[in-house]
Amino acid sequence: MLDIKVEKTQCPKEKPAKDDPLLFGTIFTDHMFVMDYEEGRGWYDPRIVPYTDLTLSPAATIFHYGQGVFEGLKAYNSESGNVNLFRPDMNAKRSNRSSDRLCIPEIPEEDYIQAIEQLVALDKDWIPDEPDHSLYIRPFIIGTDPFLGLKTSRYYKFIIILSPVGPYYPEGLDPVSIWIEDDYVRAVRGGIGEAKTGGNYAASILSQVKAHDEGYSQVLWLDGVERKYIEEVGAMNIFFKIDGKVVTPKLNGSILPGITRDSVIQLCKEWGYEVEEKRISIDEIYEAHKAGLLEEVWGTGTAAVISPVGKFRWGDEVMQVKDGGIGELSHKLYDTVSGIQLGKIKDNHGWIVEIK
Amino acid sequence: MLDIKVEKTQCPKEKPAKDDPLLFGTIFTDHMFVMDYEEGRGWYDPRIVPYTDLTLSPAATIFHYGQGVFEGLKAYNSESGNVNLFRPDMNAKRSNRSSDRLCIPEIPEEDYIQAIEQLVALDKDWIPDEPDHSLYIRPFIIGTDPFLGLKTSRYYKFIIILSPVGPYYPEGLDPVSIWIEDDYVRAVRGGIGEAKTGGNYAASILSQVKAHDEGYSQVLWLDGVERKYIEEVGAMNIFFKIDGKVVTPKLNGSILPGITRDSVIQLCKEWGYEVEEKRISIDEIYEAHKAGLLEEVWGTGTAAVISPVGKFRWGDEVMQVKDGGIGELSHKLYDTVSGIQLGKIKDNHGWIVEIK
Repeated sequence: MLDIKVEKTQCPKEKPAKDDPLLFGTIFTDHMFVMDYEEGRGWYDPRIVPYTDLTLSPAATIFHYGQGVFEGLKAYNSESGNVNLFRPDMNAKRSNRSSDRLCIPEIPEEDYIQAIEQLVALDKDWIPDEPDHSLYIRPFIIGTDPFLGLKTSRYYKFIIILSPVGPYYPEGLDPVSIWIEDDYVRAVRGGIGEAKTGGNYAASILSQVKAHDEGYSQVLWLDGVERKYIEEVGAMNIFFKIDGKVVTPKLNGSILPGITRDSVIQLCKEWGYEVEEKRISIDEIYEAHKAGLLEEVWGTGTAAVISPVGKFRWGDEVMQVKDGGIGELSHKLYDTVSGIQLGKIKDNHGWIVEIK
Repeated sequence: MLDIKVEKTQCPKEKPAKDDPLLFGTIFTDHMFVMDYEEGRGWYDPRIVPYTDLTLSPAATIFHYGQGVFEGLKAYNSESGNVNLFRPDMNAKRSNRSSDRLCIPEIPEEDYIQAIEQLVALDKDWIPDEPDHSLYIRPFIIGTDPFLGLKTSRYYKFIIILSPVGPYYPEGLDPVSIWIEDDYVRAVRGGIGEAKTGGNYAASILSQVKAHDEGYSQVLWLDGVERKYIEEVGAMNIFFKIDGKVVTPKLNGSILPGITRDSVIQLCKEWGYEVEEKRISIDEIYEAHKAGLLEEVWGTGTAAVISPVGKFRWGDEVMQVKDGGIGELSHKLYDTVSGIQLGKIKDNHGWIVEIK
C-alpha cells in the first residue's frame, strides 16, 4: 500500500459552468498524482500535488526516444451517489504489459489502482453532475533521463491527471463514417501495436487528417503484412455482426487489447450470441455487405463506449451498413455498458469499483 | 533570415576537464535555441537562452501521442581553426520530411541551418580541443498542445541543444558484433520508419536490451513483412562489400535515409567501386559468407561515422566477417569522412559549412 503524501491546492480552480460543452481533454482538475522512479531505488515519493506544469531536462528520454506509455479510463457519478470506476484492474494490467514492451519498470497493480482511487476521491467534486458526464482519468509514465544515449531511461515519472468530460454523443448515439486505410500502416506484428504508447498514435495522425479531409471521422487500419486483415479503428476496437454472429479481430500482437472490447465479448456471449475472435479480411466484410448479411458494425473504446458505424469507404467503394442507422445490438451494448458504469444497471460481473 | 534574440547566461558552467571521458549526451553547453509555433501564427520568437529545463503542461502532446521529430549532427574544430558543420542542409531537409509524416509544420531550411550556426557560434568554446572530439548537435521538435484529444498539436517547440563528445572509439576503430533480430520489428512499409521520430526508437529498446544481454552491441533489423530483407542496424545504415562490390539496402520507406550513408555511397562510386542499392535478403549475406565472398561489413551514422562489423549472430549461427578485423575500405571511408569533417582532408563535395 502506497503512503501517498497529499498537498492540497491553496487556490482551487473554478469548476466549469453547467452549460460548458466540456470538450474532451481540455480542462483539468485541481490535483495530480506523481511518483518517481530511479534505477536501483525503484518507485518512490508517491504524492498528490496541485495540478501544475512538468519541469524536465530538454534531454529527457520522452522528448527524443518515445519511451512512454499511457492509459485512459473514467470515473462516473452513480445513481446511488457513489463514484464508480470501470475495471481499473484491467488498466493497471495493460499498463504493465505496455511497460514490459517499452522496457519501463512495472508498477504493482494495487499501487496503480490506489493512486487512481485516492486522486479521484480528492477531486470527485469535479465529476460534472449532468447526465452521461464523467471524469476522464489519464495515467501515464514517461522516461525522464537527461541523457541522449540510445538506451533505457534510468528515471521515470508516473503521473495521473483528471479531466471532466461531457457525453461523447451530446445529441445521442450517432453512427460514424470510416475510411479504410490501405496506404499507411499503424503497426505490425513484432512491433509495438499492442502497447498503449505514443509511437502508435504518432504513426496514425497523417491518415486521420486525410480521412477527416475526405469527410470521414475515423480510420480503419489493415494489417501491416498483407494489408487485407482488419486490425482496429482509430482509437477503438471493431466488431461486426454478420448473419446473426458477432465477429471481431483476434488479438494478434499489433491490436490494442481493449477493455470495452473484452466487456462487449462477455456480454454478447451471455446474451446467447456466437462470438468469434478471428482474422477478418476486408474482402470478407465486403462479401457480407454485398450479400446483405452485414447487419451491424460498431467500435468499442473508453471515450465513446460503443460507436455504431454507418458507412465505410474502401478505395472507390462506399459501403453503407444497413440503413446507416444504429443497430439493435449496438444500442443494447451501449445502454448496458454505460448503464453499468453509471450505476443504472446492476453489475453482475465485478466490473465496478466504488470509490470510498 | 531569423531575427534571433540572444540572452547570454549570467553563470557560465565549468567546461569538462581535459581528461573527462565525455560520455555521449550527458553534458550540455551554456545555451540552447528555442522557437515556438502556434496554429494560425506560424513559427515565432526565435531565441537563444541559457540552457534550462522545459516547462510543459502534463497534457502536452509529446507526453501522450509521440508527435515529435529530431536530428543529430556535429560541429568540429577544424585543423585551420574554423568550426565545421557536415552537410547541415541534409539534416534540415530530413527534419522537414520527418515532420511531414508526423503532421508537424515545416521549418524553412535556411532558418533551421541559421539557428544551428548561430547557437554553435556562441558556444563554440565548448568544442573540446582534443583529437577526434566534437560538439554533438541535437535539434528536435515537440508537440506541446495541452490537450488530450487525438489530433495534430496546435503548438510546437523547436529546440536545439549541444553536447561536447569524445571520440566514439577512444581506443581507435573497433569492430562491433551484431544480433540479427528475427522476432521483433522496428518499422514496416507504410509506417514511420523513414522518419526520425521517437516511436521508432521506442520500438527498438527491447531488442537492444536482449542483444546486449547476449553480448552483442547492436541489433540488425529485418523487414516487417517477410522478415528476411535487411533494413538497418541499431541507429545506423549498413553496407556490405561482397566480391568487390558494395551493396546496401535500398531506401524503401521503412529505412532511415542516413546522411553518412549518402556520403559513403558517393565516395565509393568516386573510388571506382560498383555500388548497388537494392533489397538484400539475409540469406544472400549468409551465402556470400559461406562462399568466402563477404569481404567487409560496416555501419554508417553520425555518432561513429563508420562502424566496422566483426560478426553477426543469426539464430544459432555466428558469422564472422573475414578475420573479424577492420576491412581496408571501411578504414579508408572512416579516415576520409572524418578527415573531411575535421578539415584534415580537402572537401571537394561542398559538404562542409564553416561557421563564421
